[in-house]
Amino acid sequence: MVPDKRRKTTNDEKLEVMRHSAAHVLAEAVLSIFPDAKFGIGPAIQDGFYYDFDLPRSLTPDDLPIIEAKVREIIAADLPFTREEVTKKKARSLFAAQPYKLELIDEIPDEKVSLYRQGSFVDLCRGPHVGSTGEIKAFKLVNIAGAYWRGSERRPMLQRIYGVAFDTEEALAEHLKRLEELETRDHRRLNKQLNLYIAPEEIGGGLIIYGPKAGRIRAIVEEFWRQEHFANGYELLYTPHIGLSKLWETSGHLDFYKENMYSPIDIEGQQYYLKPMNCPFHMLAYKAQTRSYRDLPLRWAELGTVYRYERSGVLLGLLRTRGFTQDDAHIICTPEQVEDEIAEVFRFSIHMWQAFGFDKYKVYLSTRPGKAIGTEEQWLQAEEALRKVLEEQDVAYEVDKGGGAFYGPKIDIKIEDALGREWQMTTIQFDFNLPERFDMVYIGKDGQEHRPYMIHRALLGAWERFFGLLIEHYGGAFPVWLAPVQVMVIPVTDRHLDYARKLEAELKGGGVRVEVDARSETVNLKIRQAQLDKIPYMLVVGDREVTEATVSVRLRSGEQLASQSFDSFKQSINQAIASRARE
Amino acid sequence: MVPDKRRKTTNDEKLEVMRHSAAHVLAEAVLSIFPDAKFGIGPAIQDGFYYDFDLPRSLTPDDLPIIEAKVREIIAADLPFTREEVTKKKARSLFAAQPYKLELIDEIPDEKVSLYRQGSFVDLCRGPHVGSTGEIKAFKLVNIAGAYWRGSERRPMLQRIYGVAFDTEEALAEHLKRLEELETRDHRRLNKQLNLYIAPEEIGGGLIIYGPKAGRIRAIVEEFWRQEHFANGYELLYTPHIGLSKLWETSGHLDFYKENMYSPIDIEGQQYYLKPMNCPFHMLAYKAQTRSYRDLPLRWAELGTVYRYERSGVLLGLLRTRGFTQDDAHIICTPEQVEDEIAEVFRFSIHMWQAFGFDKYKVYLSTRPGKAIGTEEQWLQAEEALRKVLEEQDVAYEVDKGGGAFYGPKIDIKIEDALGREWQMTTIQFDFNLPERFDMVYIGKDGQEHRPYMIHRALLGAWERFFGLLIEHYGGAFPVWLAPVQVMVIPVTDRHLDYARKLEAELKGGGVRVEVDARSETVNLKIRQAQLDKIPYMLVVGDREVTEATVSVRLRSGEQLASQSFDSFKQSINQAIASRARE
Repeated sequence: MVPDKRRKTTNDEKLEVMRHSAAHVLAEAVLSIFPDAKFGIGPAIQDGFYYDFDLPRSLTPDDLPIIEAKVREIIAADLPFTREEVTKKKARSLFAAQPYKLELIDEIPDEKVSLYRQGSFVDLCRGPHVGSTGEIKAFKLVNIAGAYWRGSERRPMLQRIYGVAFDTEEALAEHLKRLEELETRDHRRLNKQLNLYIAPEEIGGGLIIYGPKAGRIRAIVEEFWRQEHFANGYELLYTPHIGLSKLWETSGHLDFYKENMYSPIDIEGQQYYLKPMNCPFHMLAYKAQTRSYRDLPLRWAELGTVYRYERSGVLLGLLRTRGFTQDDAHIICTPEQVEDEIAEVFRFSIHMWQAFGFDKYKVYLSTRPGKAIGTEEQWLQAEEALRKVLEEQDVAYEVDKGGGAFYGPKIDIKIEDALGREWQMTTIQFDFNLPERFDMVYIGKDGQEHRPYMIHRALLGAWERFFGLLIEHYGGAFPVWLAPVQVMVIPVTDRHLDYARKLEAELKGGGVRVEVDARSETVNLKIRQAQLDKIPYMLVVGDREVTEATVSVRLRSGEQLASQSFDSFKQSINQAIASRARE
Repeated sequence: MVPDKRRKTTNDEKLEVMRHSAAHVLAEAVLSIFPDAKFGIGPAIQDGFYYDFDLPRSLTPDDLPIIEAKVREIIAADLPFTREEVTKKKARSLFAAQPYKLELIDEIPDEKVSLYRQGSFVDLCRGPHVGSTGEIKAFKLVNIAGAYWRGSERRPMLQRIYGVAFDTEEALAEHLKRLEELETRDHRRLNKQLNLYIAPEEIGGGLIIYGPKAGRIRAIVEEFWRQEHFANGYELLYTPHIGLSKLWETSGHLDFYKENMYSPIDIEGQQYYLKPMNCPFHMLAYKAQTRSYRDLPLRWAELGTVYRYERSGVLLGLLRTRGFTQDDAHIICTPEQVEDEIAEVFRFSIHMWQAFGFDKYKVYLSTRPGKAIGTEEQWLQAEEALRKVLEEQDVAYEVDKGGGAFYGPKIDIKIEDALGREWQMTTIQFDFNLPERFDMVYIGKDGQEHRPYMIHRALLGAWERFFGLLIEHYGGAFPVWLAPVQVMVIPVTDRHLDYARKLEAELKGGGVRVEVDARSETVNLKIRQAQLDKIPYMLVVGDREVTEATVSVRLRSGEQLASQSFDSFKQSINQAIASRARE
């Protein structure tokens, strides 16, 4: 029932062997062009392979076709791969001119090492390999990059050639198309075109300024998020961005999370920390009043901006930042309510993802790790609640045994985007730790104090990352309800400007985000610009439209709709906005 | 035309003299009760006076009526105030037993000092005073507090008695009523009753956690604010809460504003500061693209949370905090656009204040101070623009000559609340500094680079302070569109619960914030609770309401409306919400 996600299929294994062999062939090709080449390592990786070389000159993209042609020759020659075992001593003399290989040989504990040989090339290698070079099917060299020997900045910088390899030309073509699509949809690339956000070095790494367009999208998403939360029984908190060290001691963050926190700020001799999480503030809000079982469940959400340390090397556009806004919620309830609450959070999460255009997802259930706090009974109840919810909702899921946090089990939801990539976004976690640390209690029906259960949830996750996902999922062409500008009115000449302005005013009055391109440019250029800006609707208005009170509607896809009355257009755009139509 | 706000009227001067004389009479009364009393000082203050005493025992509120009776006796005796001049030597022997007076005598530079005497009491005093104690009209002792001698923590703690004094009993009664009202409306006191926010010491001073009710109000206000801004041509930015030291050097904050900033955070050897203002981030957003005159004006707003240092001693509930959210905006425009933009900002500000129930305001125009940056021409144009806008809108205003900031002239709007108090809230400022420091330019019609004008505006000001004002202005009884809970349905008995739940569901479906008080308590107790919670509408439903499909509506004022159909109630509450009715 529960597949092990770590096990590879036989086909995967075969592909991996072929890719590894392709790396050897690449090395042979490079050797034939650069007889003095020094060789690093050349493993198979996802979708392909690479090999690291120390060469007498820097490679340029122009070198790739030449090397590729050589690889093809070797494949066409169908040379056999042969394995042999030699003593280390023999290997050292064989690789006397290869310092990187010598270093590797020194680290092998066995007395004998294995070599693989094809054609004129021999490599230190454990294998396995394909029988002969002819078995290498569809491949392509795709990229050159610098890579430190053994990943260390103190070691020499080598030149890495990346290739991809598949068992059919079709699979390769599909993969290459996908790579291209990935690059086209890269949010950093689209951002240059759409001017959504900036991350200027003057403010420091991993910090984002949302410009007017991104600000508009964020305001729409956040208001939708708030209204959905209110409608689903959540209340909203707002908490500060700094808190006294004492708070982070009580919560345990200074014990267990300090490496993700920034250095403290001193105020009148006391130490304050930027918040890496919102939770401790919510705990204090809970404790501000005596709580009875009648008050539970409490569902408290916050769009709280948190700051966590990330090394500057790993920062990545919107996807990995140092400051980000989490759509956090804490659900505090009695043990009897836990199951319903989890079911509700799960249902609500899927509902929200669908609203944003995501229908596919994968679910992971992570259970008790070796070291954990909380009683056996709590863990059992919590894991059982999670499992039951998933099974009752007939959701397929994988179990990550022992993969829970030390403070509780969790459900993670990975969202699949338009390119089939999975994004770890939603997390629904039990927390046995904070209720204990903050000594949270409620008065039960029995008049006694009880410890509540707490569920910690982030739905869209970090706003920045979610926004990055949105941009890439939609390739920058946001659905009309989210598009910063929904309509561009394009008058054919200046004498159509009055009509254009009239349409603008009417649409604006109805809450539509509309602009008029009144520049003295050609219609074609204005259309091209609006398409580049990925504006959902272009209304081109000329003599006929003015006379007939119609609009000629063009979509950003390039599609031209039949001429229609302005009223009919208004109706259809309003319908598209209200229903949050996808396209 | 332009009154000098600092000059006092003659009546004010007379009142001040009378209050000062009352302080002397208070001292005489205390002397008659505590013959060993040592005297500090006893000045007139706003609305009254105080006197500081060093007494053999601590005073309690019970002492006040006794002292007050003695004051009345002295007033009734109509004792004359007489002035005399004596040498310092004579004064020292006269006040030999009064160490505080001796200290004061030592500090007087003249050889002679003046004394005032009435009845058995003599005081070192410059005067003037009323002719006799009978001229002291309506007065009351109101409070006892500790006060360090000369305000220094290192000097003895004295006991201060506060009194208020007016020229008629009516004025006094009015003032006392007002004091009581002020206390009743104090947002900290109302917060204890309404559970809006908390400021727990665990997180540090001056930091606010908005609980669910305050969070709801804030979400409503902010969304209204956003929609109004969008409708008025503003765009929205979101910026981080920290920025690299370099940014604050460029902006000048580290030169001129450092004492209001917190100590830096170290990230990978670089210094980051919590933002005390949003402006520098907006400047970078401007510079992220080449701007043309066609792009101007830009109106960029942000609800940005900033952090500024305040001594812990001056922190005051919501009114003075260390972290607060400003409703900032920056308007960047050409010189030709400045006047229209200022007029628009002014009109928009008044519109927003009216929406929140504030109709009265005072306007101040602050002009060039001695030290200022920017050219003479810029200042003249800017001041002229401000002046012209106010005059064209026929707004009375006072000029604060030289009261502008060094970087530009400004308009301040003080809002009058329900108790007639003025709150400095809106500020509309020119800024000649930041465009210069960030080298902001736009390409003019002439193809050349020009420096834009920048107007910096905070409308509601700090969200926290605005919320404090809202609470006090409405005495916690928020108008229905802002009330966290708008309707409480109160079933008379359990058998009316189904009908109550039906009303709840229908109202909730229509977006109304409604709760049902299903507790097993009496109707009267539930009504009292809803009134204490200041819920606008209570729907009491019993047999008759169930049978007739009506509701019996009770307002939080205690007013009972005629029984009406549920549909008619729905209509009227929806109307009240949509129109943002005041009550």
